[in-house]
Amino acid sequence: MNMALVRKLLRELKKMPIIDPHTHVRAQQPVALHLGELLGYHYYTELSNSSRGRPVPLPHDLDERIEYVWPHLPDLRGTVQLDWMMGISEAFFGIPRKDWFAKPKQDVIRRAKKAIQSKSYEQDVWERSKIKYVVMTNQFDEDLSGLKDKRLVPGLRTDDLAFNADTAKSIARLDKAFHVKSGESLAAWRGAVAQVFDNFRRWSMAYAAIGLPPSFNAIEVAEATAAALLKRIANGETLDAEARLTWAAFALEELARQCRRVNTPYCLMMGADRGVYEHGVPAGQDQFRCDAHLRGYDRLFNAFPDVRFPVLVLSDTAGLELAAAGWIRHNVYPMSHWWYSNNPVDIRRELRRRLDVLPRTKFIGFHSDGYSLEFTLPKFNTYRLQLAIILAERIEEGKAGGADTIEPLDVNGALELAERILVRNCGEILGCK
Amino acid sequence: MNMALVRKLLRELKKMPIIDPHTHVRAQQPVALHLGELLGYHYYTELSNSSRGRPVPLPHDLDERIEYVWPHLPDLRGTVQLDWMMGISEAFFGIPRKDWFAKPKQDVIRRAKKAIQSKSYEQDVWERSKIKYVVMTNQFDEDLSGLKDKRLVPGLRTDDLAFNADTAKSIARLDKAFHVKSGESLAAWRGAVAQVFDNFRRWSMAYAAIGLPPSFNAIEVAEATAAALLKRIANGETLDAEARLTWAAFALEELARQCRRVNTPYCLMMGADRGVYEHGVPAGQDQFRCDAHLRGYDRLFNAFPDVRFPVLVLSDTAGLELAAAGWIRHNVYPMSHWWYSNNPVDIRRELRRRLDVLPRTKFIGFHSDGYSLEFTLPKFNTYRLQLAIILAERIEEGKAGGADTIEPLDVNGALELAERILVRNCGEILGCK
Amino acid sequence: MNMALVRKLLRELKKMPIIDPHTHVRAQQPVALHLGELLGYHYYTELSNSSRGRPVPLPHDLDERIEYVWPHLPDLRGTVQLDWMMGISEAFFGIPRKDWFAKPKQDVIRRAKKAIQSKSYEQDVWERSKIKYVVMTNQFDEDLSGLKDKRLVPGLRTDDLAFNADTAKSIARLDKAFHVKSGESLAAWRGAVAQVFDNFRRWSMAYAAIGLPPSFNAIEVAEATAAALLKRIANGETLDAEARLTWAAFALEELARQCRRVNTPYCLMMGADRGVYEHGVPAGQDQFRCDAHLRGYDRLFNAFPDVRFPVLVLSDTAGLELAAAGWIRHNVYPMSHWWYSNNPVDIRRELRRRLDVLPRTKFIGFHSDGYSLEFTLPKFNTYRLQLAIILAERIEEGKAGGADTIEPLDVNGALELAERILVRNCGEILGCK
Repeated sequence: MNMALVRKLLRELKKMPIIDPHTHVRAQQPVALHLGELLGYHYYTELSNSSRGRPVPLPHDLDERIEYVWPHLPDLRGTVQLDWMMGISEAFFGIPRKDWFAKPKQDVIRRAKKAIQSKSYEQDVWERSKIKYVVMTNQFDEDLSGLKDKRLVPGLRTDDLAFNADTAKSIARLDKAFHVKSGESLAAWRGAVAQVFDNFRRWSMAYAAIGLPPSFNAIEVAEATAAALLKRIANGETLDAEARLTWAAFALEELARQCRRVNTPYCLMMGADRGVYEHGVPAGQDQFRCDAHLRGYDRLFNAFPDVRFPVLVLSDTAGLELAAAGWIRHNVYPMSHWWYSNNPVDIRRELRRRLDVLPRTKFIGFHSDGYSLEFTLPKFNTYRLQLAIILAERIEEGKAGGADTIEPLDVNGALELAERILVRNCGEILGCK
Repeated sequence: MNMALVRKLLRELKKMPIIDPHTHVRAQQPVALHLGELLGYHYYTELSNSSRGRPVPLPHDLDERIEYVWPHLPDLRGTVQLDWMMGISEAFFGIPRKDWFAKPKQDVIRRAKKAIQSKSYEQDVWERSKIKYVVMTNQFDEDLSGLKDKRLVPGLRTDDLAFNADTAKSIARLDKAFHVKSGESLAAWRGAVAQVFDNFRRWSMAYAAIGLPPSFNAIEVAEATAAALLKRIANGETLDAEARLTWAAFALEELARQCRRVNTPYCLMMGADRGVYEHGVPAGQDQFRCDAHLRGYDRLFNAFPDVRFPVLVLSDTAGLELAAAGWIRHNVYPMSHWWYSNNPVDIRRELRRRLDVLPRTKFIGFHSDGYSLEFTLPKFNTYRLQLAIILAERIEEGKAGGADTIEPLDVNGALELAERILVRNCGEILGCK
Repeated sequence: MNMALVRKLLRELKKMPIIDPHTHVRAQQPVALHLGELLGYHYYTELSNSSRGRPVPLPHDLDERIEYVWPHLPDLRGTVQLDWMMGISEAFFGIPRKDWFAKPKQDVIRRAKKAIQSKSYEQDVWERSKIKYVVMTNQFDEDLSGLKDKRLVPGLRTDDLAFNADTAKSIARLDKAFHVKSGESLAAWRGAVAQVFDNFRRWSMAYAAIGLPPSFNAIEVAEATAAALLKRIANGETLDAEARLTWAAFALEELARQCRRVNTPYCLMMGADRGVYEHGVPAGQDQFRCDAHLRGYDRLFNAFPDVRFPVLVLSDTAGLELAAAGWIRHNVYPMSHWWYSNNPVDIRRELRRRLDVLPRTKFIGFHSDGYSLEFTLPKFNTYRLQLAIILAERIEEGKAGGADTIEPLDVNGALELAERILVRNCGEILGCK
């Protein structure tokens, strides 16, 4: 590692503005109100539950959540997950990382809480993070008409219209939101869904998004089959596994059609198996499968040549398969490093692959997935360090190889490339400008 | 990265002769006649189609192909695919890489065309590349009896006798080439196929080769089943998917039998799914699956202990599985880094793995897969840079570890190893001497 | 690579004591009696068989085994497998690595044999290796009551009670060992198995262990189904593939129940397909599948929240899936780097991943899997070198990133972390203290 070069690149990367193209930041309260919200982020509660050797239910009270997590923090030193909390502490609380392990617990908690309660806290987080925009995760029946802050960009999450249509009571919710009877017929349902997209278009959505299970097969579903399923869902039935997948395949295609109609990308988040660890804390029960492949989407990608599909994969194993899809397909855009794959080893491998084989316009660098705005900066910093390492390596490789062998890259060129994948591509692919 | 060491190794690697053990170079015209052939290589047309955001059909005219690709070249800067074209430009056109982006388009095109039309162009490409041999990809009904240049070694591609037997009209082509009626019986078909192998043996073939879909299962097929399928193929039927796989499994084993008879290796190229991207340019429509495994070949490898099987895998995920097969099986030889896996990340991982766990006699370093001779040198150079990096890393690791921990390696030893996998193993495994 | 830092770390790592948490060391004869046992380790016989290009049966005579392997050693230079033998030679024979290739064969063999026959040989191996404990692999019907050496810790291998229940004649062996009729009923079988666990508990076992095929599905099996299968096994039937898997699923759960009862971990070794290469030497016939996933164990992990499951995977592809399971599940402990995955590339990737995302208490560093005690030290040294490289990289990354981005790590902290995963976690997770 050329330390001087990595440091130089990282310093410059840290000066760049951030567009965070996928978060769970709340429209009404972008930052935390309590330290227990931050330490209650599922990355900390699940690691605490895992560290303990026996499952303990997560308390509701925010102060108790701090107690739930606190004893396990020393065992998390050196992990990227802890780095995010420590980054928050350093950047927004003014508490040096080392104080967490050297000072009395109550002292740290008191100082953190004081920072959060400061009047300028939210503004400080925006400014110190240099965030231009964050894309939120919004439910189809949310009313965002009052949203004033242009830096909070709606992202329409469509899972509840497809995979969770039955359990999430989506028909009743559509009916309530739009004063319709969406369960009466596919035409009625389509009309209600079109209203959803019209609203989100009006609210300048970045994209629609959906989470998909491993190796999902986006088959074609006959109208009659879908109509019969709609009736069952409208009747309040909980579908069996196969029926759920059939409805989801139908809905996925309908939602892609809406994306085409309103000219918005459809962001596919592939690979999570929900709820497999029954003793887990909330949001800490999901796994992936290393044999999950992407070939079930061939038909969808072919059928919607005029829809842009940013794609995230949860598994490391699908990385090159996704790169190959982004390489030849005009409408597939590999996006970021997600969840279990958001760690230095897997970031580096995929980042370098994408830099080596994809047009620089074809992929999006990073997203935080944070539940409050504070996580954007430290998560981007974890990524930026890996990006700096890969760019430094690539600069040196260029020098070692010579112009007959490899494209030379200098610091300016590397930073231009970084800005391209982190900022400009969010604009060009997602429309966040 | 020890830059001085990488540079030193690379400099020496670039002095070595090249044996290119798998190409699509044309026997009658090994080099390009027109710049549009080089820029029309599918790596450039597919990336252009992908960059554009909407599919555009590829023009036939070679000048129009240049126009098709040209606007997208800036977005490909930094990719290995562009490095290959730039390497051609530097080595054979005398046009520095930077001129492509700094000089007027027509100026670059004019200079490139002029170089290609120079009288000594083909000879220059051979000599500057230091190519000793290239193995071609020849169809079973090609007549290579007039082939004079010993540096062009036949490679018998057998896909059309197996997977594409129906659509490629292989029965009619066998009958035409050998004045037989190969569709009359399995005996007749076998006789015709034996003539194919006899011819290629006379022409000093390097090996027979075949492309295979992901997770192909080389099952045993009964004579009667195969005989019935042969009739259908001979009748001009297009087989359904299952019947095609059954015939292919039968043919694969018959072809392995021929390899055994004439003592030639059978090169298996595993993992491509053809034609999945329907808006793609020619040769830019194929993908792989990350769940593709190699276990369907167990029976074949066991049944032909006296046939050498060089194996290429398209997916990154099968890399260690292939290394493990090369490790214990006496007749499996991991070969090169293919297509989507031919990028620095995946080269490095597999190369280091093979160096660490395989006898040095058990694997083949690299092949270009080029469609004309110009691509051999720059593609080998991309590989040589990664090889230099891995060898330098290994030399340093040897020094750091000490002789009680790891085999010491010096520059001479590293170059001997490189020569072994790149040159000598082509001779010993494939017979290209 | 920061050579000075790697060297410094490695030097310190080599001073640490070793706990080897999984071996096949023999209770009665922990070290080799003959050089042919060491060169007859399957890693050398299988690579010799593979190098030769045609299969040759392995001789029984130990001197002939040396001859079987000897001619192929030069082609193995640079591999990690050879490093282990060379490490033995350097550490215990006093023969420098280079002598193997520079001195007459008979001279090297004579010196090696002399060292092995020295009176203090076993004691020297223990002491120079700084081994505190090794866990053995013991059959359920072994009598370890006479075991005097506390450094040899029993490990109960349960494969023969589950997957090989029929072919390994486990019912007859249970009956003989415990003077019972274990085939008469599930109650009788359970009683006999309970005696096995009681014995091993008395002998201070480290854990029970089992080898499992790729993508095994730990389904629930009805009592009546299991009872019927027990009768067939007791009758000496060889079960068909499906029946074997059904019995194995039943037995796996019963064995987990015993682990819970006697409070011992259940170590799952996932992914080997046995006997696929029919021309292979003994223990050199097994492969894995790159599509093997871990999701078939969800039910088992959920059903036994009070059993600790150390998990080893044979495939590289399941690495992140295992890390993710160790990350959220309180009872899954990723363990070591096994067999085909025990090579520098795959060690580095998994090690760095685990350091980055797992609580430091949740994984076990390394095991040798050696068949005699001599292999522990050199195999740990191969791992230690990779560990030193990864720790050095991590120390530098910490310096480059800054405390707002990444946890700083110094040499002391790195060594503390190493001691934690190599020594202390064996104590806390397995109970080897």
